[in-house]
Amino acid sequence: MTGVAAPETHMAREIAEQPAAVAATLEALLPLREDLRRLFAGRRHVLFAARGSSDNAAVYGRYLLGAHAGVRGSMAAPSLATHYGPDGRGAALDLDDTVVVSVSQSGATEEIVATQRWAARRGAATVAVANVPGSPLLRTADLPMQTAAGPELAVPATKSYLSQLAAMVVLGTALAPDPTALDADVARVADEIDRLVATQAGVDEAAAALSASRHPLVSGRGLAMGTALEVALKLEETCLRPVRGLSYADLRHGPIAVVDDDVLAVLVSAADGPLVSPMAELAAELHGRGARTVGVGGDAAFAAQVDVAVEGPDLPETLAPLGLVVPMQLAIERAARVLGLDPDAPRGLRKVTRTDIG
Amino acid sequence: MTGVAAPETHMAREIAEQPAAVAATLEALLPLREDLRRLFAGRRHVLFAARGSSDNAAVYGRYLLGAHAGVRGSMAAPSLATHYGPDGRGAALDLDDTVVVSVSQSGATEEIVATQRWAARRGAATVAVANVPGSPLLRTADLPMQTAAGPELAVPATKSYLSQLAAMVVLGTALAPDPTALDADVARVADEIDRLVATQAGVDEAAAALSASRHPLVSGRGLAMGTALEVALKLEETCLRPVRGLSYADLRHGPIAVVDDDVLAVLVSAADGPLVSPMAELAAELHGRGARTVGVGGDAAFAAQVDVAVEGPDLPETLAPLGLVVPMQLAIERAARVLGLDPDAPRGLRKVTRTDIG
Repeated sequence: MTGVAAPETHMAREIAEQPAAVAATLEALLPLREDLRRLFAGRRHVLFAARGSSDNAAVYGRYLLGAHAGVRGSMAAPSLATHYGPDGRGAALDLDDTVVVSVSQSGATEEIVATQRWAARRGAATVAVANVPGSPLLRTADLPMQTAAGPELAVPATKSYLSQLAAMVVLGTALAPDPTALDADVARVADEIDRLVATQAGVDEAAAALSASRHPLVSGRGLAMGTALEVALKLEETCLRPVRGLSYADLRHGPIAVVDDDVLAVLVSAADGPLVSPMAELAAELHGRGARTVGVGGDAAFAAQVDVAVEGPDLPETLAPLGLVVPMQLAIERAARVLGLDPDAPRGLRKVTRTDIG
Repeated sequence: MTGVAAPETHMAREIAEQPAAVAATLEALLPLREDLRRLFAGRRHVLFAARGSSDNAAVYGRYLLGAHAGVRGSMAAPSLATHYGPDGRGAALDLDDTVVVSVSQSGATEEIVATQRWAARRGAATVAVANVPGSPLLRTADLPMQTAAGPELAVPATKSYLSQLAAMVVLGTALAPDPTALDADVARVADEIDRLVATQAGVDEAAAALSASRHPLVSGRGLAMGTALEVALKLEETCLRPVRGLSYADLRHGPIAVVDDDVLAVLVSAADGPLVSPMAELAAELHGRGARTVGVGGDAAFAAQVDVAVEGPDLPETLAPLGLVVPMQLAIERAARVLGLDPDAPRGLRKVTRTDIG
């Protein structure tokens, strides 16, 4: 279907709008790097508060901080704020060495708003990454980072997610010893996304494999781990299949026991870095257990080990997640339609998720 | 099958040995609380490094630290040590404000051994929770905490996991303002486990539901979240089914879209605390979507909302995880045999997992 017809769904249209969304987000937020450095000065930790796709974006932010900036990031447990905070010992946690980064498309997820409020009371500096202007998270953060994805109409996040990744690039480079070290590659990101939307090498084959599989799992590691989680979540909510997103290492610690010829394994890898070769070995091992494998990105050795090779971006590992998800978004949107589902409106989901806040 | 016959599998025997394993572990490790306080003095964070069941035990440790001790715990990303550490910026991470707690039954998981070594080089104080005497983790940690589960022959961890939870109790109480505040309840834990092994209320019905379901998911939140993850992993590796373990909140952010009458939802809840009532609401919602529900623990209102009620421990929320997993271990072992599987030796797993360390 490459190059054919106008996109029919909001989701397809919003996938195609991603180069513009990422370019606009980078343009808006890159000037904030100096503010981010100032806010972080004297602090040592970054704590991410997010759910769903936003949490998957934060996982990338966490690895980018660790692997590129040399800064410790970790994932918040929001219930410590919302349920154990008010009366329990969660109220005693001291965050004065920490910047808390809240990530939410709507900027209105109650649980995350409550967590940001709690973090500020506990001494944290707060950064909010959100897409909806004037939303509670942006209004109340010390440093609002408004992504520029524009209104997103499909329930599954695509361009808002990619804009969040762009915000993570701004954060991760801002806190690195040299904030401009990746800038030449950052400047190529939007074009690479555009190219992937246009060429779609392997996307039809991947869509066919996804729509035919009842037991998909998705694996990645390190900087690409968040992408694996996002592909799993997107596939699950859009194609209404139970899908597991697992790190390479967690997969070996038990779940690999269930891999047989009934399983479709989607493996996500950057083209370079310390994990591309272990990911190729994982592909071979899963293949040996009878699984069908779809490989996204990676190098030539990785592509040679998988049944379906999907082209990834020509970007270094640090930035690869901004391209790796794109062909899988396309494949998942297509697979949903093959299955007779409406990718724009998965059963039972709303755009702003209400999690009780205790 | 309650009360019938000698246990036939290592797994069943080791489940029954848990009261003794937990009692011996508490006896061995409770005297270390003062050492733990000294090691933590001047530091502010606890970082857990673990995989598989050990990681699920660490998740409990993390919530116990946050909700009971008022200390920040988080989960390490081992690839920052093993793959991004040697050459990349992972080498720049400063851990001099942190105690790194490694958890591993064997004490020999290469990835975790490498992470502990890296942590020490980065300035962390190190604590190792491991079951095998003389293992590398125990030999090289600043403070070794050897669990007293004895040799574990079944591949699925049961008594070693519960002994790790006991070690987490020692850690979580040691760093609390009053280390002895929970001691009266801690002293009852082994007896409660013993009672749950003997009474097995709801276990047969749960085993039947598990063996009949192709799409189980397991959910919990807060202090019981690690239990939900452990039940999911145990079910997956023992009954060879793909199972997702999800927090209450993450479930609502997408995966709930796939819940229909094909799904069996196992919900784990303490009998008290701020999450028992939200868990009862979740049970009602999943039931409304057609899912069959198994509820473990909780209060009377929770039990009234589920299709199969499995009795949990009479322990406060802070300690409930040491009992909640027990009836599900029994049910899973039984379900595996109903399915004609050998619970002691899941296909494709070894007792010491090799994850490459780059």
